[in-house]
Amino acid sequence: MNRSSRIEQVVALAGGVGGAKLAAGLQAALPPGALTVIVNTGDDFEHWGLTICPDLDTVMYNLAGVHNPETGWGRADETFAVLEAMSLLGGEDWFRLGDRDLAVHLRRTEWLRQGLSLTEVTERLRRSFGIPSTILPMSDDPVRTLVHTDEGDLPFQHYFVRRRCEPMVIDLSFVGADQARMTEPVRAALERADLVVLCPSNPYLSLDPILSVPGLRRRLQQLPAPKVAVSPIVGGRALKGPAAKLMQELGQMISPLTVADHFSDLLDGFVLDRQDAVLERSLDMPVLVTDTIMTDLASRRALATALLDFGAGLLASPSYSPSSLDSSPSAQ
Amino acid sequence: MNRSSRIEQVVALAGGVGGAKLAAGLQAALPPGALTVIVNTGDDFEHWGLTICPDLDTVMYNLAGVHNPETGWGRADETFAVLEAMSLLGGEDWFRLGDRDLAVHLRRTEWLRQGLSLTEVTERLRRSFGIPSTILPMSDDPVRTLVHTDEGDLPFQHYFVRRRCEPMVIDLSFVGADQARMTEPVRAALERADLVVLCPSNPYLSLDPILSVPGLRRRLQQLPAPKVAVSPIVGGRALKGPAAKLMQELGQMISPLTVADHFSDLLDGFVLDRQDAVLERSLDMPVLVTDTIMTDLASRRALATALLDFGAGLLASPSYSPSSLDSSPSAQ
Repeated sequence: MNRSSRIEQVVALAGGVGGAKLAAGLQAALPPGALTVIVNTGDDFEHWGLTICPDLDTVMYNLAGVHNPETGWGRADETFAVLEAMSLLGGEDWFRLGDRDLAVHLRRTEWLRQGLSLTEVTERLRRSFGIPSTILPMSDDPVRTLVHTDEGDLPFQHYFVRRRCEPMVIDLSFVGADQARMTEPVRAALERADLVVLCPSNPYLSLDPILSVPGLRRRLQQLPAPKVAVSPIVGGRALKGPAAKLMQELGQMISPLTVADHFSDLLDGFVLDRQDAVLERSLDMPVLVTDTIMTDLASRRALATALLDFGAGLLASPSYSPSSLDSSPSAQ
Repeated sequence: MNRSSRIEQVVALAGGVGGAKLAAGLQAALPPGALTVIVNTGDDFEHWGLTICPDLDTVMYNLAGVHNPETGWGRADETFAVLEAMSLLGGEDWFRLGDRDLAVHLRRTEWLRQGLSLTEVTERLRRSFGIPSTILPMSDDPVRTLVHTDEGDLPFQHYFVRRRCEPMVIDLSFVGADQARMTEPVRAALERADLVVLCPSNPYLSLDPILSVPGLRRRLQQLPAPKVAVSPIVGGRALKGPAAKLMQELGQMISPLTVADHFSDLLDGFVLDRQDAVLERSLDMPVLVTDTIMTDLASRRALATALLDFGAGLLASPSYSPSSLDSSPSAQ
């Protein structure tokens, strides 16, 4: 029996590069249309008068295979003619917007100004890129991650790009989250999910903003589908970005266990890298130990396939019974 | 005596390429700060969600010496990466926006959205480019040239660029002109002008919109400074653009005389190309016959210098007395 046969619809929660890589692996491992990625929009900001959605774009470019393979974000074969001209005009040049990337921001901003929702805009862009998966912003309402640091409060991109994550983080807030509404497409995608994957994205900066949308965390808790997280911490360090630095600054241990603990109310399974196999015994939930470092599409796909098998196993297991669930898995 | 010594401040009314060329010549022939160019904004439009001001930019790029010398509009050493990416995203690609050019539209649009007037935005851009002359939009209020054709009404850029001036023109209107206000900087520039030059721009599409701003034409009529037009028609054809085609379609003779007649209520002098010297006798005003075809900065400057001498001569001439003027020229 193909254990993954029952996984027909997968929802992935993703932020930037790590999430986008696993999303691309899942897309490659699944039939077209089987994947929905719910993406962090807490990083979104206004720049050059345009609405920039870095995580949505990173996911989109990776799913379309037009991403810059060196950085993981931005577009392949990119040029920076507008940025250079902007700089000469005294415009802001700390956020390196490429020319091809800029076309997306122009198109998005024009559509938003015409009254389309971010969900509708993202759907149009997805189709333009010929992406077979669904990409959903976590909400159509603005949520903005504010980083409280020892140098004062910084809007996310100022902390992340302009200040290169150098200030020490004291706390985070997701401005606007209490007013943000879960969208109908997000609700529907969760409803039909057979597996929910928390991608190896920054727990605090990428996944927490998604979970800050009112009702979304509770909806996930109640969902019949198993929820599995892939650790963004491997061998005592973050694979990319400031997750490890942030854990330390927030007084946490730099460990996959910190991630598992952070999402303990949600998780039915956890994925550890082989380097951290020893930690399996410290987790009181089913664990998949596998290679989680994604260097190319083959390794992304291999991780995704292992993950889907793991998810199918959880779903099929007689012992699997999500805590807050009334109906049994077979009743879904 | 240097006859041009009394010309200290010059105002040029300009549209696109022809006007921009003469403006650049005047700037080269005059001391820094002596030239103010009042520019047509009837061509302005919204594209990709940005405010594009083609004539302002053509004048600005020519005065900055960063224009494309082949086309006369757009920027030198331009690339089109954003346009290509835009086209792949299904965006409009009939208006060929270059990457460097785009930086200006982004900057302008951002400033306009912040509440700056088009006059203030243009002043900031002028300074960024290090241009020693003043560039003024004809008004801060939107005026949009609408072209009534045998194929229906077309917004200016749709007629001019998208349809390449092919439809037959029946009439023109300047939508919003009746509500547009003359700006204080335009009023002040006219006030201190010693010479007003109607550049060799399209009379109907470039100069008429400027003169449609309420009060501007009358202010010009009453101005003590001599007003001189340079014919955009040479040897029975337009040097550039659809001026000749338009004259014919509007039932006019394709001739410098048609231009002189069109502005007869304003002009104190007229500039003919040597090719049209024979027409001098048909004009009942002082005429300068000279080389008016501007192929490079030297020829632009030569025309400007001849024009300034001609203007100084008009100003110094005892017979010079603007029709609607109460005070004598020496009283200004």
